[in-house]
Amino acid sequence: MQVKSGYTAAVLGKTYDNQVCSAARALELVGERWSLLIIRDALFAGSSRFSDWLRLGIATNILKNRLDGFTEAGIMERRTASRNPEHFEYLLTDKGRDLAPAIVALTEWGDRWAAPNGPPILYVHSVCGGAITQQTTCANCGRVHDPAEVTVRPGPGMPPDIAARMDGNPSGDAQVGSTH
Amino acid sequence: MQVKSGYTAAVLGKTYDNQVCSAARALELVGERWSLLIIRDALFAGSSRFSDWLRLGIATNILKNRLDGFTEAGIMERRTASRNPEHFEYLLTDKGRDLAPAIVALTEWGDRWAAPNGPPILYVHSVCGGAITQQTTCANCGRVHDPAEVTVRPGPGMPPDIAARMDGNPSGDAQVGSTH
Repeated sequence: MQVKSGYTAAVLGKTYDNQVCSAARALELVGERWSLLIIRDALFAGSSRFSDWLRLGIATNILKNRLDGFTEAGIMERRTASRNPEHFEYLLTDKGRDLAPAIVALTEWGDRWAAPNGPPILYVHSVCGGAITQQTTCANCGRVHDPAEVTVRPGPGMPPDIAARMDGNPSGDAQVGSTH
Repeated sequence: MQVKSGYTAAVLGKTYDNQVCSAARALELVGERWSLLIIRDALFAGSSRFSDWLRLGIATNILKNRLDGFTEAGIMERRTASRNPEHFEYLLTDKGRDLAPAIVALTEWGDRWAAPNGPPILYVHSVCGGAITQQTTCANCGRVHDPAEVTVRPGPGMPPDIAARMDGNPSGDAQVGSTH
């Protein structure tokens, strides 16, 4: 269950190891300061070289740390872009590109709650120019508008003892996925 | 444009102030270590009292800092739950509950890329029991399956000088939303 790497062990002072939860695993890989903004710029601003991200105002040692971590975690791939002088480029893998929905969802939350002048950025479908949104969808009855209607149940990856605790406590006051 | 508060100024050693971007604003409010896991448990595990979150394994000073910050940012509301002894409960506001899509999207990424035993948690629609997913959707042509098809354009909240730079550089190598 635990997906550990040298990156999470070395970079994060404290991981969420006791959390049996994919959100926690995701945050171990991309929840550090600047991480999602670096990936955002790789996705949507064409950033691929070290100097591209320096425009964020990020310190070079932190940027190096993040890019090394993304490379080790398979979120980016490092390639030699030129020799003499040697330059590298960092390209998102499928795993990295697949963070787009989470970044779009965070952006939409910021648009709704922290953008008094309106959205600074609009997401657009490159194929047809339509507006892109993240929608919470029920496979059975369609779009879900009220987040209070989203509940959790143990899945196949949940250790049986914790799953039993969750099932025996449908009111929701069991700790989701905690091994404590 | 900049939405600052005592919280972001006091809590975050370095904010993303130079980023004209709602994802950056969102991360200033909920991007600190433990923040999204605290909100996850308020959303899906019924956590509402200080002691509920201690099961996460989070240090008390960090938890207090996060709950104070969420309260100040309007993500949670603090209420007196009992007197003698005095106990508080922290309840998500609409703004806080509205983080569900971002948390579901991060979970789904973790499920796809960091859950070799399968998803530990399944999101379920409380109304009908259907499976909940986050879908990237184009208002014009429906569901978008390839994140590479999501592009950005300046929105109404983007300062004109940066918007002009973005529009003049449709290949995408302008810095999204950076004031640098």
